[in-house]
Amino acid sequence: MSDPFFQPPSGTDLPRYAGVPSFMRLPYLPPDHPRRGEVEIGIFGLPWDGATSNRPGARHGPRALRDASTMIRERNRATGQEPFRAARIADLGDVAMSPVDQDEALGNAQAFIRGVLGQGIRPFMVGGDHLCTLTVLRELRAARGEPFGLVLLDSHTDLYPPYFGGQTLTHGNPFRQGIEEGCLDPARCVMVGMRGTSYNNADFQYGWDKGVRIVPIEECMELGWTAVMEIARAVVGDGPTYVSFDIDFVDPAYAPGTGTPEVGGPTSFDAIRCVRSLRGLDIIGADLVEVSPPFDTGGITAWLGASVMFELLCAMQK
Amino acid sequence: MSDPFFQPPSGTDLPRYAGVPSFMRLPYLPPDHPRRGEVEIGIFGLPWDGATSNRPGARHGPRALRDASTMIRERNRATGQEPFRAARIADLGDVAMSPVDQDEALGNAQAFIRGVLGQGIRPFMVGGDHLCTLTVLRELRAARGEPFGLVLLDSHTDLYPPYFGGQTLTHGNPFRQGIEEGCLDPARCVMVGMRGTSYNNADFQYGWDKGVRIVPIEECMELGWTAVMEIARAVVGDGPTYVSFDIDFVDPAYAPGTGTPEVGGPTSFDAIRCVRSLRGLDIIGADLVEVSPPFDTGGITAWLGASVMFELLCAMQK
Amino acid sequence: MSDPFFQPPSGTDLPRYAGVPSFMRLPYLPPDHPRRGEVEIGIFGLPWDGATSNRPGARHGPRALRDASTMIRERNRATGQEPFRAARIADLGDVAMSPVDQDEALGNAQAFIRGVLGQGIRPFMVGGDHLCTLTVLRELRAARGEPFGLVLLDSHTDLYPPYFGGQTLTHGNPFRQGIEEGCLDPARCVMVGMRGTSYNNADFQYGWDKGVRIVPIEECMELGWTAVMEIARAVVGDGPTYVSFDIDFVDPAYAPGTGTPEVGGPTSFDAIRCVRSLRGLDIIGADLVEVSPPFDTGGITAWLGASVMFELLCAMQK
Amino acid sequence: MSDPFFQPPSGTDLPRYAGVPSFMRLPYLPPDHPRRGEVEIGIFGLPWDGATSNRPGARHGPRALRDASTMIRERNRATGQEPFRAARIADLGDVAMSPVDQDEALGNAQAFIRGVLGQGIRPFMVGGDHLCTLTVLRELRAARGEPFGLVLLDSHTDLYPPYFGGQTLTHGNPFRQGIEEGCLDPARCVMVGMRGTSYNNADFQYGWDKGVRIVPIEECMELGWTAVMEIARAVVGDGPTYVSFDIDFVDPAYAPGTGTPEVGGPTSFDAIRCVRSLRGLDIIGADLVEVSPPFDTGGITAWLGASVMFELLCAMQK
Amino acid sequence: MSDPFFQPPSGTDLPRYAGVPSFMRLPYLPPDHPRRGEVEIGIFGLPWDGATSNRPGARHGPRALRDASTMIRERNRATGQEPFRAARIADLGDVAMSPVDQDEALGNAQAFIRGVLGQGIRPFMVGGDHLCTLTVLRELRAARGEPFGLVLLDSHTDLYPPYFGGQTLTHGNPFRQGIEEGCLDPARCVMVGMRGTSYNNADFQYGWDKGVRIVPIEECMELGWTAVMEIARAVVGDGPTYVSFDIDFVDPAYAPGTGTPEVGGPTSFDAIRCVRSLRGLDIIGADLVEVSPPFDTGGITAWLGASVMFELLCAMQK
Amino acid sequence: MSDPFFQPPSGTDLPRYAGVPSFMRLPYLPPDHPRRGEVEIGIFGLPWDGATSNRPGARHGPRALRDASTMIRERNRATGQEPFRAARIADLGDVAMSPVDQDEALGNAQAFIRGVLGQGIRPFMVGGDHLCTLTVLRELRAARGEPFGLVLLDSHTDLYPPYFGGQTLTHGNPFRQGIEEGCLDPARCVMVGMRGTSYNNADFQYGWDKGVRIVPIEECMELGWTAVMEIARAVVGDGPTYVSFDIDFVDPAYAPGTGTPEVGGPTSFDAIRCVRSLRGLDIIGADLVEVSPPFDTGGITAWLGASVMFELLCAMQK
Repeated sequence: MSDPFFQPPSGTDLPRYAGVPSFMRLPYLPPDHPRRGEVEIGIFGLPWDGATSNRPGARHGPRALRDASTMIRERNRATGQEPFRAARIADLGDVAMSPVDQDEALGNAQAFIRGVLGQGIRPFMVGGDHLCTLTVLRELRAARGEPFGLVLLDSHTDLYPPYFGGQTLTHGNPFRQGIEEGCLDPARCVMVGMRGTSYNNADFQYGWDKGVRIVPIEECMELGWTAVMEIARAVVGDGPTYVSFDIDFVDPAYAPGTGTPEVGGPTSFDAIRCVRSLRGLDIIGADLVEVSPPFDTGGITAWLGASVMFELLCAMQK
Repeated sequence: MSDPFFQPPSGTDLPRYAGVPSFMRLPYLPPDHPRRGEVEIGIFGLPWDGATSNRPGARHGPRALRDASTMIRERNRATGQEPFRAARIADLGDVAMSPVDQDEALGNAQAFIRGVLGQGIRPFMVGGDHLCTLTVLRELRAARGEPFGLVLLDSHTDLYPPYFGGQTLTHGNPFRQGIEEGCLDPARCVMVGMRGTSYNNADFQYGWDKGVRIVPIEECMELGWTAVMEIARAVVGDGPTYVSFDIDFVDPAYAPGTGTPEVGGPTSFDAIRCVRSLRGLDIIGADLVEVSPPFDTGGITAWLGASVMFELLCAMQK
Repeated sequence: MSDPFFQPPSGTDLPRYAGVPSFMRLPYLPPDHPRRGEVEIGIFGLPWDGATSNRPGARHGPRALRDASTMIRERNRATGQEPFRAARIADLGDVAMSPVDQDEALGNAQAFIRGVLGQGIRPFMVGGDHLCTLTVLRELRAARGEPFGLVLLDSHTDLYPPYFGGQTLTHGNPFRQGIEEGCLDPARCVMVGMRGTSYNNADFQYGWDKGVRIVPIEECMELGWTAVMEIARAVVGDGPTYVSFDIDFVDPAYAPGTGTPEVGGPTSFDAIRCVRSLRGLDIIGADLVEVSPPFDTGGITAWLGASVMFELLCAMQK
Repeated sequence: MSDPFFQPPSGTDLPRYAGVPSFMRLPYLPPDHPRRGEVEIGIFGLPWDGATSNRPGARHGPRALRDASTMIRERNRATGQEPFRAARIADLGDVAMSPVDQDEALGNAQAFIRGVLGQGIRPFMVGGDHLCTLTVLRELRAARGEPFGLVLLDSHTDLYPPYFGGQTLTHGNPFRQGIEEGCLDPARCVMVGMRGTSYNNADFQYGWDKGVRIVPIEECMELGWTAVMEIARAVVGDGPTYVSFDIDFVDPAYAPGTGTPEVGGPTSFDAIRCVRSLRGLDIIGADLVEVSPPFDTGGITAWLGASVMFELLCAMQK
Repeated sequence: MSDPFFQPPSGTDLPRYAGVPSFMRLPYLPPDHPRRGEVEIGIFGLPWDGATSNRPGARHGPRALRDASTMIRERNRATGQEPFRAARIADLGDVAMSPVDQDEALGNAQAFIRGVLGQGIRPFMVGGDHLCTLTVLRELRAARGEPFGLVLLDSHTDLYPPYFGGQTLTHGNPFRQGIEEGCLDPARCVMVGMRGTSYNNADFQYGWDKGVRIVPIEECMELGWTAVMEIARAVVGDGPTYVSFDIDFVDPAYAPGTGTPEVGGPTSFDAIRCVRSLRGLDIIGADLVEVSPPFDTGGITAWLGASVMFELLCAMQK
Repeated sequence: MSDPFFQPPSGTDLPRYAGVPSFMRLPYLPPDHPRRGEVEIGIFGLPWDGATSNRPGARHGPRALRDASTMIRERNRATGQEPFRAARIADLGDVAMSPVDQDEALGNAQAFIRGVLGQGIRPFMVGGDHLCTLTVLRELRAARGEPFGLVLLDSHTDLYPPYFGGQTLTHGNPFRQGIEEGCLDPARCVMVGMRGTSYNNADFQYGWDKGVRIVPIEECMELGWTAVMEIARAVVGDGPTYVSFDIDFVDPAYAPGTGTPEVGGPTSFDAIRCVRSLRGLDIIGADLVEVSPPFDTGGITAWLGASVMFELLCAMQK
């Protein structure tokens, strides 16, 4: 039976626009909260965009997603799931990350995540730019002792070689870095939705050389999303898997509020369906990144992001 | 032959952004106008959002839709119809509805609609929030003496049980109330496009128990819109039918300006096609509701709403 | 010495855009929190706009003001005050107010405020529309047993006679109602900044008849704000006084996000100066109302509102 | 006693956002309306920006100003005037002006205005760009048989020599053209508020040579607005005078929605006060031009424009 | 081997938001530049909307598209093409077109294009409204001595009869005019994507009478885009062909920033795919028109437009 | 006599919205341009916000300011100056600054500025965040061999102690750092316009201890801007002086597009007047920083910024 402490208030009791906005209106449990140890899935924000090569603003993502997520109700109409009853989920707060010091910022994030993992909590990270993902990958690797698989829904591979004359830590490199550092098992990595222009083909070539399965958007549209997600499931199998959702996976008409949009992407229906199809995988952690509120219009990107978060939480249900 | 009095000025004579904006640039005939009795389809606004549980602003809908609808030209490119020639259609004005007194507001609306029906005019209501629909249902029921069918295009069933500790008159309840009050024949009700999160399943269960046919978005996408609309037509048959179009039926990328958007919805092409497929039904009244201009971006929701209104007027052609 | 529990985190430790946003980043103490009894000034939201005659959206005010207020730092540059050290201030949360049932909404608000006053906390209410103020006036009256004075900074008197055929409870009536119900001592009421168009002069006449001092904007501009505020201080004297700040007091160039703006108002500098000049009065409660985020542009209204809140908290320092 | 036919509905009866929006909610009397002959002041739109050298969009001005003007109430709080009781004022509609043919557009406008003047109606024109003013000047000149004075509130003189290799009919030339064509008596012309950058000084020099009194913004700020408007009154005296208000007179913080803003302008309070000080002049016609809705933010420019229109109508009271 | 002079700087060297924005960050070669003669494809702007019947603003299109196009990288992820290596492409600047004198404006544009063609440069025109296309058609016809084919991707045929009482030169007429003037071979013209409302059927009828192949959106959706583009290729064959892309071809959810949007259009993926399928045709010139930045939201229309431009440049590769 | 090469095209020849946008439409002279050595005042962009503690986006400043500055005409209406005739001014382009590596970014900026100074060009820097100023201060110091004076127009002193646990290089520290590094002579530094909240008083205290003259906004308003600027001139005297203008000096109603706005600031008229009063000082360099386009509304901040830039160029006239 579900614990009332971990249930969000209903919008028919407290209107959805009311109250201090935590993620999904769940209880906010900072590090020293006595009940934090009971949490099964912990949502936290990494409000940081210090690795962004183009338009910034993802540092404001967690705030906007907390706000938008208060519109989420308890039940998944499509699947019948009630994720807040199925697991004890909470808002663990944001990490203090210096906007002007990458080392300190990443270090603080990793220390926080280490604490989360140390309490046996499955991490759900809300970015922040995509380099934030690397902090989760590193700590998961450290905690588990071996590499794991990846499902990436994104318009970019983020496998690029160094930027700006040698920078290996930008939001275009986290998965290359994740492979180089041994966090990810490239043979169990699948990347879906790639499109747009590129500097060159070095990222794809790197991925192919390592054995990563890349599914560009043209292949997605040709095969259909059901088939694509079957491929994705086959690649990762039933081993431990991390899921990363970059909001620029979705077409900019649906998600204008992001730093590096690429036209020609999937609809929100397709995006939701992709996430839903991940259910049953052994998801050891997940994230939603690259929502940049200053470039959003009418809050539709944050609302889509909050909806994706809900579906990810459903997919993580055991 | 069509009456020149009821023809809107052409945009090649008077530019579309010019002039006092009535719905579709049609003649504005307030209650005391001598030619009001000639009207066959009367468009009127219920500028009221006093039953809105979430983001308000639908009270500004009729104003924005009048403005946007001046962009509509005379002819339906796809069907060849010219609805303003096929029937005498007019703008009947807005009802004075108190924003702070639900009883008075609904009462005024019903009195106005009673007058419209009394003149033999088919009603086309422009909301306002979805509870406004109930005022039309009630008066149609009173005028006709028996229940009728419903086609609802929406992301919600609006069959929810009472809100906020007992409120039966919110924008989440109109069709439950319409069934309870005997306006609607549940066996001839079909609801298309449901999705998103829900408080629980009580609305679906209520509908199923009563015999309402509910087609969630997943079923729509699987069957295809042509098949779905065939189902819809079969449910209502050739008996008298009301058509209600909630703008949140369409995906928020296409219709951000609404109070309770749900991601993962149809495109504007699909939405238009759904409406177009209703032609030939015995449509005794229709509405377009829940356009909330303060949440619109660039006026695209109002423009889509005006386009849907035009298609509904074509579908109502006898 | 100030209690660390009641200090907001510094923006140089946790960036100001990070974290769950409570008012001024102060601790959030819901009704059952063990330390609530220690609070001296309690900030709470009434997210409700059910009495709004024109453009809605003030129900979203508390959320937007919490967000914007995280930009506030600890110290008042102009006065040297550090209000969070001078008093124990906290965020008490929002009241659950039904958007569709005025009686229930006002009743819930009054019950909440009764609790706040019962704990000896000075109330700082964040609206919501201006009728929300009436709930505070009523409970302060009940708790204190006698009427008190008022400083109103607003572009309207809110002394209007009933609206919409008899409604006495709209956002245009709270102070008339407050006088009628014996909450306010009209001889100790001063209203500053009135301007724009009016239905008639009934509101001014009512105020004059009762002895309220009204200072229209033309008089403000002629006398200068220093002189005006001396008048205001003289009217209320050193008796107990409530301060109400309607954001539409300020010119719409500075505060576009409100329901009923009036052009020709003061600048933000003048507005801040007015608030600052209230220091030393016996302020028994205060509010900031009528911020309507859907009509805001770039968040400047919310940011101004948060700045005004901070100055009000400084003015309330004993 | 005032004629009920010419009274706008009160916002306490019909909410201000409801109804088909005519200027100030006044009766809409197209050219063939039987009661048009009774009108004393006729407001009409020239939805045209075909002479705009920079950012377009003023063609959408009349629509936006009709919408915003429904927020205006009956009474001028500052002066006690009730202009709709003092004179029979109506909305005469918009002129059909081709956006792609300047000759036809100006010709249509002049023919319309000729009709208005022929019915003895004082014209109040709503632009459109500033060249629209020339059509009024020309027809007033033709109808009266002699030149008249001018009060211009603007950030530009609009006395520029031809643009783009010889164009004398752009929105930078109307008053030069008005002087050249003998519509205006330059010795009775005063221009207030000039500022910003200029191509050269040819416009000032032309004005000075003709005897026009130009008051740049620096002089306004130094003398104060009261003194400046006394100068303005002295220049035009009690002879017949036209008043033209370009919304870019006001600072872009107050009026962003215009084609050629200039920073460093007056506040809305000062602008309103300038208009108010014109009362008692023999105003034979007036206009409000250059509101460009596509560049407006949050509708504040349209709202300011509507407020200025109301003050102009009060100033025109005899 | 590609000439370094004609390569844009990489975003990993100079961030994409940095630098003076030329189209695609290519070298800017005004008419007198010594290397202009080497250019193979020349991109230039016609910043003019003087033929716009509805919402203006396309005059700001080239500026916005230069800005957005700096987000484009070197390589087409889908096709592997690197267009800036495959041909020498440059930004030739904008033509000075009077916004108030159609004759002068069109004359200047034609003179400029004549110069471009005289240097053997393939023209890529960036509008501006759709009448701008006529200037390219005329000069191509003059230079080549015979009519050519057309692929039009648009929601309108732009084959309308005269507007506003006889205007043949509006943005609704360029292709009718192009056929009438012998620029286009109607039997080799194909128009894809038509939809929405129309004044009448005169445009379709004109096209059919002349032998133009028109594919309305319903036919597109039924046949699928692959089949439609095969039809398009068959119509134009391997003769010389002009390609015109009106941004209102795409649904307004994807491209809100345009003057005359029509709902129910293709997605950005479909639009990109259509362009891509044109590769191999003998494309003698191309354009992207009708981006109207004042009506854009969040820059998504400009970004889509820049992406379409890139695909067109790829399709033009020989 | 002025050199035609250095004159911007007139808006009456080439409309102001046309053409590739360089600063003020001046010639763009990258480092290797043969005529760069003739430049007297060089405007360049530092598109970088890597030291921003709060809302980012100033990296997009130079792009937006180039665009807005094309609205500037040749002549200063108020002073009669024609700065582009008085000196050879050019756009020197932007510096490539890594958004993810502060050391590299600052190093590149300094190397670029060193080159500019080496060519004897007076630098006009366009930010970017306020730390960008430090790069100019450092290179000016190195080139001149001794400290110089400063006029700062800002709402903050930017004299704060280290942020985020020891960061001395943030946008809150440049002038403290400039003093510590011996670039600035504190006795010849004046800071005008300080206001808002602060973490503590350490910045003021530091300035006072060093002998910096700080004029908070309250003092400005009390003394009047003329008197304040006389104080400022007296502090710097006729020695070499750097002028830095942070756009957040102006009230957010006038300049919403900035990262850390503070309400209660001067109007645009006052701000312009302050800049104008600097004429005659020995200005060795200047900047305009902290314009953040993602937070701008309607481009008014960029337009104000461009206007301030023009006035600064006039003030720099010798």
